[in-house]
Amino acid sequence: MIAPGASPSGEDSLIARYFRPLATDPGAFDLGDDAAILKALGGDIVVTTDAIVEGVHFLPNDPPDTIAQKALRVNLSDLAAKAATPAGFVMTLALRAADDAWLAPFARGLGADLGRFDCPLLGGDTVSTPGPVVISITAFGRVAPGRMVRRSGARPGDRIAVTGTIGDAALGLDILRGGRVAAALAGDAAAKEMLVGRYRVPQPRNALVQALRDHAHAAMDVSDGLAGDLAKLCAASGVSAVIDAPAVPLSSAAAAALAAGAVGMQALVSGGDDYEILCAIPEDAFEAFARAADAAGVAVSSIGTVIGGTSPPRFLDVQGKDMPLPRLSYSHF
Amino acid sequence: MIAPGASPSGEDSLIARYFRPLATDPGAFDLGDDAAILKALGGDIVVTTDAIVEGVHFLPNDPPDTIAQKALRVNLSDLAAKAATPAGFVMTLALRAADDAWLAPFARGLGADLGRFDCPLLGGDTVSTPGPVVISITAFGRVAPGRMVRRSGARPGDRIAVTGTIGDAALGLDILRGGRVAAALAGDAAAKEMLVGRYRVPQPRNALVQALRDHAHAAMDVSDGLAGDLAKLCAASGVSAVIDAPAVPLSSAAAAALAAGAVGMQALVSGGDDYEILCAIPEDAFEAFARAADAAGVAVSSIGTVIGGTSPPRFLDVQGKDMPLPRLSYSHF
Repeated sequence: MIAPGASPSGEDSLIARYFRPLATDPGAFDLGDDAAILKALGGDIVVTTDAIVEGVHFLPNDPPDTIAQKALRVNLSDLAAKAATPAGFVMTLALRAADDAWLAPFARGLGADLGRFDCPLLGGDTVSTPGPVVISITAFGRVAPGRMVRRSGARPGDRIAVTGTIGDAALGLDILRGGRVAAALAGDAAAKEMLVGRYRVPQPRNALVQALRDHAHAAMDVSDGLAGDLAKLCAASGVSAVIDAPAVPLSSAAAAALAAGAVGMQALVSGGDDYEILCAIPEDAFEAFARAADAAGVAVSSIGTVIGGTSPPRFLDVQGKDMPLPRLSYSHF
Repeated sequence: MIAPGASPSGEDSLIARYFRPLATDPGAFDLGDDAAILKALGGDIVVTTDAIVEGVHFLPNDPPDTIAQKALRVNLSDLAAKAATPAGFVMTLALRAADDAWLAPFARGLGADLGRFDCPLLGGDTVSTPGPVVISITAFGRVAPGRMVRRSGARPGDRIAVTGTIGDAALGLDILRGGRVAAALAGDAAAKEMLVGRYRVPQPRNALVQALRDHAHAAMDVSDGLAGDLAKLCAASGVSAVIDAPAVPLSSAAAAALAAGAVGMQALVSGGDDYEILCAIPEDAFEAFARAADAAGVAVSSIGTVIGGTSPPRFLDVQGKDMPLPRLSYSHF
């Protein structure tokens, strides 16, 4: 948006080259104005924001397309958990330099995902930083008025369910860092690749939105570890829970790492970056919920029950004994 | 939002201590859910996002309350320029450590401003970083459907107006860096303090919203330098402009620095961080616009005229000669 004849700044040219082609929504105004327009369409706007930092949420040598996907998908996962349909997002990108070799695949990964999840890029800001790359995304979703699924609606007797498998991403990070899991799975390249993929590219469960709308009392996404996030959901709902730890769904790779002693169950249920959905479903609706999830192509597992009281949720092992969980979840500070 | 008995993480306790007391809007759910709700209320939602980075947009030893104010106000300035009424914001905060001595004044500054500008905190994300502090805010505003004031509406014959004074913030930064302006104004502590204040704490012109709605063909906020931002507005509108450089409003401190030869007019009109509003007003509406601005307590100055064509805008000096502007505006890359 620089006048012909004037030399375009690096920042304008970066935006024109990599991001304007992605911003096809009319509300984005070709990224050529100070702000975007999000049409209200009569419902509530669900707003969520999450930032990822190089060296903290992703590794400096992660492929740039996966970094873009992770930045968007951690936000899409929040929208999914709130039963909201994606409506768009804005992004701020703090970079050390305008490096084409990094930006081209980054924009390609972002472009593929905004099409895949039907979540248009509405606007953004690109700034320089002397430090690590920081990508902050604010994403918008739509729900009928008053119908966002909260953390606070779980009731005693509800079934606790979780999508997908738990703990894979923490194992993937361990592999990238050359930890014990890498050694335990040394002969199984496919398993290692799957786990690394689970760390780098979350699989947000947006396909579950209708099933959650129809059946869930409460939901949240599991981003900081199942145990800690369940404690948050219970606290918000004023309830407690009992989890059957052997029912927590594990991938075959995670099960192999567990069997080899490279990781404990405690670490799997307190590792971060799962981006699965944890929800409380009334007992009499669980079968219908499971059928709807199956039809949507999302695996769900029943892992426990909501109970009354305000004590921390208990995880019971195969002998029915309490599993000690010294570190409930990931915390930045 | 951690279960009683479980030890709250540093991150949860940081949010509970500093930010939950600020998040009194019902749509923020006490910062205890994965997302916030922004009620639509029938109009369009205007969305803007801007990040500020330590060492780039603010200095490491700037007072934390002013850093919070700058982070919010650069976004409020965009809403003002789009004639939108603030409706709320979300913030991601990347910090090296949870330092009470920094966070307490930061939260105090933020709290004062969200009350002052009636812009509720709806949600956020707090992450750790090994690098500079990064604060990314996405702010929301409301306009009647289709009534956001765009960059693209300027027409030949329109008057070009700007609020406040231009160039102060760039001089303030020069002073903080011990540059020539500090020496030129060595005897005038009040002038130096005013200029530093203009760098640290922008004065967004949200009071001008009604006057812009009623009269402006086009508007944007001046954040990267008047000359470059005017070129962007002209390009978006498919027009050019002629500016009477001596009509560009200067503070007495800036005028003194100019008279002392510590800065040139070119630097004043291409310096960043003004956060004033640049707008195009139809000639026959200018008097009414100026009266409305005056009633709103916002100084506006007419500085030139929109003309046809697509050549870069010209700045004419006191002799009517073209001022060379080698560097139109601030660019991050």
